[in-house]
Amino acid sequence: MPKKPLILVTNDDGITAPGIRTLIKVMNSIGDVVVVAPDSPQSGMGHAITVNSTIHCKKETIDNGPQIEYSTSGTPADCVKLARHEILKRKPDLCVSGVNHGSNSSINVIYSGTMSAAIEAGIEGIPAIGFSLLDYNWEANFEVLEDYIKTIVTSVLNNELAKGVVLNVNFPKAETKKDIKGIKICRQAKGNWVEEFDKRQSPSGQDYYWLTGKFVNFDKGEDTDEWALANNYISVVPVQFDLTAHHHIQELNSWSLND
Amino acid sequence: MPKKPLILVTNDDGITAPGIRTLIKVMNSIGDVVVVAPDSPQSGMGHAITVNSTIHCKKETIDNGPQIEYSTSGTPADCVKLARHEILKRKPDLCVSGVNHGSNSSINVIYSGTMSAAIEAGIEGIPAIGFSLLDYNWEANFEVLEDYIKTIVTSVLNNELAKGVVLNVNFPKAETKKDIKGIKICRQAKGNWVEEFDKRQSPSGQDYYWLTGKFVNFDKGEDTDEWALANNYISVVPVQFDLTAHHHIQELNSWSLND
Repeated sequence: MPKKPLILVTNDDGITAPGIRTLIKVMNSIGDVVVVAPDSPQSGMGHAITVNSTIHCKKETIDNGPQIEYSTSGTPADCVKLARHEILKRKPDLCVSGVNHGSNSSINVIYSGTMSAAIEAGIEGIPAIGFSLLDYNWEANFEVLEDYIKTIVTSVLNNELAKGVVLNVNFPKAETKKDIKGIKICRQAKGNWVEEFDKRQSPSGQDYYWLTGKFVNFDKGEDTDEWALANNYISVVPVQFDLTAHHHIQELNSWSLND
Repeated sequence: MPKKPLILVTNDDGITAPGIRTLIKVMNSIGDVVVVAPDSPQSGMGHAITVNSTIHCKKETIDNGPQIEYSTSGTPADCVKLARHEILKRKPDLCVSGVNHGSNSSINVIYSGTMSAAIEAGIEGIPAIGFSLLDYNWEANFEVLEDYIKTIVTSVLNNELAKGVVLNVNFPKAETKKDIKGIKICRQAKGNWVEEFDKRQSPSGQDYYWLTGKFVNFDKGEDTDEWALANNYISVVPVQFDLTAHHHIQELNSWSLND
């Protein structure tokens, strides 16, 4: 890669979140950076796109870095679409999303706005990585992740992701680099949320709910992202957006649905 | 299945949409039906969940059928979570979502609220099917689909979907049953949207965008959902929510990220 790569940066916590500011800082040391990120938090937006309302977009100057920045009223997936087709003059060499405040391991990849941005870029044929940190604290230590982010990003730029594959990178919580044992290539752990709804009543007597719950990992494998994080490794899961369960096609063909 | 199955019905077009009313009618002939669906359209919501605001839920009587119905302010995925953990006393035997006004074939499975409801049910271990019709018309002919819906639903109840697999069913547009050639088990076609943004200016001079675009199918295979629909077949794609690109793990391990 002789020329400086063009890197698109986005996230789902909003353009001013500490996680994306760290990511922008590291990307400035690697390439030419354009940021197109939501103007407010978009957590839990999954792969939502804005089809029934309009999207606003505004140039921003958040800090003194060399990056060019835009905030939008859209979802993370919208940001990638808008960047690709309206803001950037050419296809970026890479799209990075995050660093998310909170992990997106196991089934959470499905609900994650961070990962939906990376997946949207992947659909557009752009190499893409989503980064998340297992720490919801707004003041989490992102600095300790910088070297690892650089290593992973330069590896993706120097090697080649398979077509239709993006990376889901999750960092364990760490105060110093010594707290992190290394990087592990993993599969998505089998787990889900056991939901509880916090039922309340409004002053006018109307019931309403808050979604709460507890994530349960049902997967005892030591090759999963959950295992890696629990053992202080950085997990890297290759993620695909061909959702076809190819292994079940033969079985379905035996059902004789046309008889 | 000697007892009547308990069937959860939801959608993303809202509880009064003709598509879900057809689905409810057919499900009433098969089992005990509980409807938990959005109170307004939620198209393009992907797998969004409501984490930063509250969810309202209200009992409804939309028609004279035997089903029990609730509308909620949540997304399709929220509806399934709320039904499973708050409204229903036991795990339903089946969850059906749709019939969506518009197809959810190829990459659209990713953006689809209809399919996110089915996937959410699948994550909870409930057999699930999303139904969509390649016709955006609110007055589309859903009646012609009724026998096919019944065939597919009873097949799922009498056979067994693999763990971690739900079905994405898309119907071609049809005026009479003769227009439909049959049911094909398919894989998700490789295709994506080529976006254009319709840029406009508000009366106060602020730029804003409408997301528009055109779906392009890059897949010449005759085993895809796009091929089936274009040739007047009903497409059935088994869909998984383990997004791990297992085939790329070996390659990533050769990158020596820990050196």
